[in-house]
Amino acid sequence: MRATSTEATSIGVDVGGTKILSVALSPTGAILARKKIPTPQQIDSAIGNPVGSSVAAAVAETVAVLAAEVGLSPTTCALGLGVPGMVDHSGTLIFAPNLHGAIGANIAHLVGDRLNRAEVGVDNDANCAAVAEHHFGAARGVDHALLVTLGTGIGGAAIINGQLLRGAHGFAGEFGHLMVDPAGPACPCGGKGCLERYASGAGLRHLSTEAAAKGELSPEAAESPESLFNAAKSGEHDALAVVDRFCWWLARGIANLCACFDPELVLLGGGVLEGHEIVLGPTSQYLRDELEGGQHRTPPRLEATALGPDAGAVGAALLGERTKR
Amino acid sequence: MRATSTEATSIGVDVGGTKILSVALSPTGAILARKKIPTPQQIDSAIGNPVGSSVAAAVAETVAVLAAEVGLSPTTCALGLGVPGMVDHSGTLIFAPNLHGAIGANIAHLVGDRLNRAEVGVDNDANCAAVAEHHFGAARGVDHALLVTLGTGIGGAAIINGQLLRGAHGFAGEFGHLMVDPAGPACPCGGKGCLERYASGAGLRHLSTEAAAKGELSPEAAESPESLFNAAKSGEHDALAVVDRFCWWLARGIANLCACFDPELVLLGGGVLEGHEIVLGPTSQYLRDELEGGQHRTPPRLEATALGPDAGAVGAALLGERTKR
Repeated sequence: MRATSTEATSIGVDVGGTKILSVALSPTGAILARKKIPTPQQIDSAIGNPVGSSVAAAVAETVAVLAAEVGLSPTTCALGLGVPGMVDHSGTLIFAPNLHGAIGANIAHLVGDRLNRAEVGVDNDANCAAVAEHHFGAARGVDHALLVTLGTGIGGAAIINGQLLRGAHGFAGEFGHLMVDPAGPACPCGGKGCLERYASGAGLRHLSTEAAAKGELSPEAAESPESLFNAAKSGEHDALAVVDRFCWWLARGIANLCACFDPELVLLGGGVLEGHEIVLGPTSQYLRDELEGGQHRTPPRLEATALGPDAGAVGAALLGERTKR
Repeated sequence: MRATSTEATSIGVDVGGTKILSVALSPTGAILARKKIPTPQQIDSAIGNPVGSSVAAAVAETVAVLAAEVGLSPTTCALGLGVPGMVDHSGTLIFAPNLHGAIGANIAHLVGDRLNRAEVGVDNDANCAAVAEHHFGAARGVDHALLVTLGTGIGGAAIINGQLLRGAHGFAGEFGHLMVDPAGPACPCGGKGCLERYASGAGLRHLSTEAAAKGELSPEAAESPESLFNAAKSGEHDALAVVDRFCWWLARGIANLCACFDPELVLLGGGVLEGHEIVLGPTSQYLRDELEGGQHRTPPRLEATALGPDAGAVGAALLGERTKR
C-alpha cells in the first residue's frame, strides 16, 4: 500500500540505544512510511556478538515489513543504517557507550546477511542526520555547517565544503567528548569532564543535581530535564539559573567547535531541545561572548534542525542510495 | 646573485610578532635565499593603521632586497604572506593577539601598494605552515592531518581530504583557544582556560610558575621553558613532573582535536619543541589514554614537523603561487 502517489526508493534506519526508527524515502525526501520499534536489549548467547546480532535481526525484520508496505524489495532497495557510535570505514561499530553490547559488530553485514543482500550503508547516526539536514533540511546550500544533537549524550557532525567530514578512520564529529573541565565528572566514555557531562540531557541532570545538592534548586525541578524546563518556564528563579548555566556550557562547547571549524551555521537538534527552543537565544548571546575575537567577527547562525527526530533515518536512507550507486 | 642554479619562482614571507622571515622558493621547494629582520614595533601616527603600515613597509623592503638577490621582479613574482592571526577571505587581519596594532589592516594590500602590484596572497601563518608540510614536509601524501605549532601561543591548521580547511570566514584551526578549564587563567584573547595557557610556551611558563609557587619546582628551573627543559634533562625530579604535566595537557588538547577531526597524523612544531622532541613519547602515551575509545582504535601518529621554522614562509610562497594563477 503506498502512502502517496510518490514512489519510495530507499529505506533508512536509525538504530538508537532504546528505539529503532525506519523510514521509506522518496527521491525528494518525502517520508512515505515509518516504523518505530524498541531496540532489543537481550543477549543472544548462541552467537559471537550477542546484542549486535539481536539488533541486526530486529532491523532486518522491520526493514522487511516497511519495504513490503511501500512496494520495495528489501533485498534490492537502497538501504542505510545510522548507529549511535564510532563506525570505522569497514562498517564495524568500534565504540558505542549507548549500544555497548554491539561493539565489534558489523551491523550492516549482519543485516545484509539476514536480508540476503550485500550493499547496506552504515554510518554514525549524527553523521546521517547532518547529511539529511544538508540535503533536505536547515543546512541546505550551506558549505560549512555543524550539527550538534542533544540527547542523553551529544552527537556531532561537520559539513565542510559541502561534504560530510568522516576523518581518517570514520570517527570525526565526536563533539560530546571534548574535555572542557579537568575537574569535571566521569563520563561513560572513560574520560572526565567531557562536554556532554554539561551540555546534554545527562548534563542537565548533572547541573540540576549539583544545584539541588547546594540547596539552589528545588528537588521537584531537579527531577528531570523536563521538570527543570517546566520550572524555568513558570519563572522559578533557581531553575532559570540552571538553564542559564546549561546555555553557557552549550555556548562554550560550540565556541570550541568554532575555533576548530569556523562554521557558518550550527544546527542544534535532539530530544532535549524539542519544545525548548527557548535556549537558542541565551546560547547565541553567550556564544557571541565566548567566541575568540567575537567583537571583530560575525558569529555563526545558531538554528534548530528542520527534520527533528527523523533526520537520522532520512540521512541513513540517503547513505543507502550512495552505497548502492 | 643566484644561490644555486635552480630558479626561484616565488617569495614567501612569514610575518611574526617579533621577526619577519622571507624565503625565495624554487618549484621543488628548495629555499634559494632567505632574510630575517625584526618586526617594526613603532607607531607611524601619520597613517590610518599605524603598526600595520610600518609592518607592510618592512615587508615590502625585505621582499625587494630578496627578489633582487635571486633575480626576481618584486612586482611580478609570486608573493605570499603568512600573518599571526585570524585573516578573513578579503585578506584583512581581524584578530591578532600577538600583532595587535595591525588588527583591521589588509597587509597584503599595503604591501602590494608599496611594490606596485596587485596579487599578494595572505593567510594565517599556521595555515601556511600546514600547506608547506603537506606539499614538501612531514604530511606529504596524508589526507587528514593536523598541525599544532607551539610558540608563545598555539597555532593550528587542519588538512582535510588533502585540502587546507579555512572555514566559512577563514578562521578555522584556532586550536589554542579551545577552552579546556573553566577555572583556568585568563588568556590574551579575552577568554579563560584556553588550551594555550597550558600547552604552549606561555603554558610552560604558567605550569612552572604554579609549581614554583607551591615549592614544587626550583626558581632556577622555573625561569624559562629552556631552563625547565634543561633541568628535566639533567634528571631533576620536580622539573620532570612539570614537563610531564605539560605533555598531559598537550595530549589532552590533541585528543580534543581528534574528537573533532579524526586525523591520521598530528604534526607538532614551533619554537618550544625545537631540541625537545623528547616530549613526543610521553605525549603519545597520554594521547592513547585520553583518546575516546582509545583501547579500540589506532591513535593518530604524532610527529615533529619536517620544515621547522621555515614552514610558514615556504607555505606563504606556495600561497603566492596559487594566488598568481
